[in-house]
Amino acid sequence: MFHELSKDNYFYAMSKDNGPKLKVDIGDTVKISSHDCFTGQITSEENAFEGFSWDGINPASGPIYINDVKPGDVLKVTIEKIDIANTGVMVTGPGMGVMGNRLKDMNVRKFDVDNEKGTVDFDGLRLPVNKMIGVIGVAPPNAAVNNGTPDTHGGNMDSVKVTEGAVLYLPVYHEGALFGLGDVHAAMGDGEISVSGLEVEADVTVKLEKAETLRTYHPVITDEDGVYMMVSDKDLNLAVDQSVHKMTDLLQPHTNLPLSEMTMLMSLAGQTQINQVVDPKKTARFFVPRYILEHYNVELK
Amino acid sequence: MFHELSKDNYFYAMSKDNGPKLKVDIGDTVKISSHDCFTGQITSEENAFEGFSWDGINPASGPIYINDVKPGDVLKVTIEKIDIANTGVMVTGPGMGVMGNRLKDMNVRKFDVDNEKGTVDFDGLRLPVNKMIGVIGVAPPNAAVNNGTPDTHGGNMDSVKVTEGAVLYLPVYHEGALFGLGDVHAAMGDGEISVSGLEVEADVTVKLEKAETLRTYHPVITDEDGVYMMVSDKDLNLAVDQSVHKMTDLLQPHTNLPLSEMTMLMSLAGQTQINQVVDPKKTARFFVPRYILEHYNVELK
Repeated sequence: MFHELSKDNYFYAMSKDNGPKLKVDIGDTVKISSHDCFTGQITSEENAFEGFSWDGINPASGPIYINDVKPGDVLKVTIEKIDIANTGVMVTGPGMGVMGNRLKDMNVRKFDVDNEKGTVDFDGLRLPVNKMIGVIGVAPPNAAVNNGTPDTHGGNMDSVKVTEGAVLYLPVYHEGALFGLGDVHAAMGDGEISVSGLEVEADVTVKLEKAETLRTYHPVITDEDGVYMMVSDKDLNLAVDQSVHKMTDLLQPHTNLPLSEMTMLMSLAGQTQINQVVDPKKTARFFVPRYILEHYNVELK
Repeated sequence: MFHELSKDNYFYAMSKDNGPKLKVDIGDTVKISSHDCFTGQITSEENAFEGFSWDGINPASGPIYINDVKPGDVLKVTIEKIDIANTGVMVTGPGMGVMGNRLKDMNVRKFDVDNEKGTVDFDGLRLPVNKMIGVIGVAPPNAAVNNGTPDTHGGNMDSVKVTEGAVLYLPVYHEGALFGLGDVHAAMGDGEISVSGLEVEADVTVKLEKAETLRTYHPVITDEDGVYMMVSDKDLNLAVDQSVHKMTDLLQPHTNLPLSEMTMLMSLAGQTQINQVVDPKKTARFFVPRYILEHYNVELK
């Protein structure tokens, strides 16, 4: 069945206490509209922060309650389509992101998106659009988690891999999962070094299912290139190491490889990558290419 | 002029006190032969460590003294060709790399390389060859640095980007630079999570020049895709942040962009990437694609 959810249904923290805005069945498709990460508060480059509330950032549309999805299940989210607005906004400022210690003032810029050509107009430089969803997740196991923070439940993972055609697997902690998403970017590089991609309003169409056999304690993505394990931690050193360990745990049981040779294979062909280094927890991802999954008949589903 | 340097000329620590094994002029080309990272000590999978010396790892062939290259210059190393042996070795073991806390025994495996097809035979799985140079650098500013450790002088940066066609720029600290390289891998993923790529003997042909205008405090690579700034630190968090700062410092003077917009551009199209997370210092690289260099007429040379 097909549903729509308007952008007026949103929350700023993922929580088991958020009342569902929509109830769907397993296998249903939902077109989810979302505000930009400023909840549309920034309408011009000048005086952008007059009356601006920093409490009003990173809205996620939802939550969506998926009937018959229970704690211990894994939610399977297929990103079928991302339609983005034709204009977006970026912000830099003191204390924000990697360069924040060298920035003295808040700066706001709006950039146009040419959705036909797939380009962002950065003052005459045409950058390729790479549409992606910044905030996506389910209600976390315990206390509410601000949408700005990523963790095992998803949240602000800011991954360029959460895009059209990708399938995201999320551990479920509560009845119905309580799924939501927002913070869509028209473009962003790995790292999101300024804390801001090109922030846009969007319509995102997702199919919501229950994973058949895949079990994971951290968000997992599959796409045509392969599989990604995403781990968030305040310390990037730990996030990277854990992404390798958890990927090994996911794949090794599908192979006949002892741990020593599994480690060699991951060293030869696995890739440590970075989602972002600017949120309260940083997110690493470890990538394994599809030809390895195919060789060992690893079916992730 | 063309020179050859045999693999019998090697050292285990980069140092201003290493006597030159070859003197060349600016613009000369050298075919450098190198042992594998075990100095050829491992000849079979069984009893590999009988009589093995851990002091005898990561040999770099050299040093090569480049006439008229002086402290404050930047050495330009064009990687013209990498010819690798048709077999290589990998090692895993307790305490080694990301998975070392879960490995109980030392394991050694040899894998064949099909240089015609460009594949590594991993027990029947054909992995793509990606030839790269693990250890490459000049004499560091102060005390000798073991070849296993990367820093501003290069060293064990273990970057998949140090490959055929790439140009590496290294700060020069001493007369003649005292350049060397070794630790070539037939294949390795970003991260080098086991501390071992597929370790091979190799012949590497490099052209040694002086950079005309490029100035840098950290190793920089250019290739057909763009430019990479490589920063090493015990803490990956700091390495990543500094790679962004140093890239910004390198590129911003070539543009008319204020720091705020330069930061936006780097957030939209720059990429935080990882060389390795297993050496005494970890190495991050920040990548900026070539179309940005072309738009702003940034000529790095």
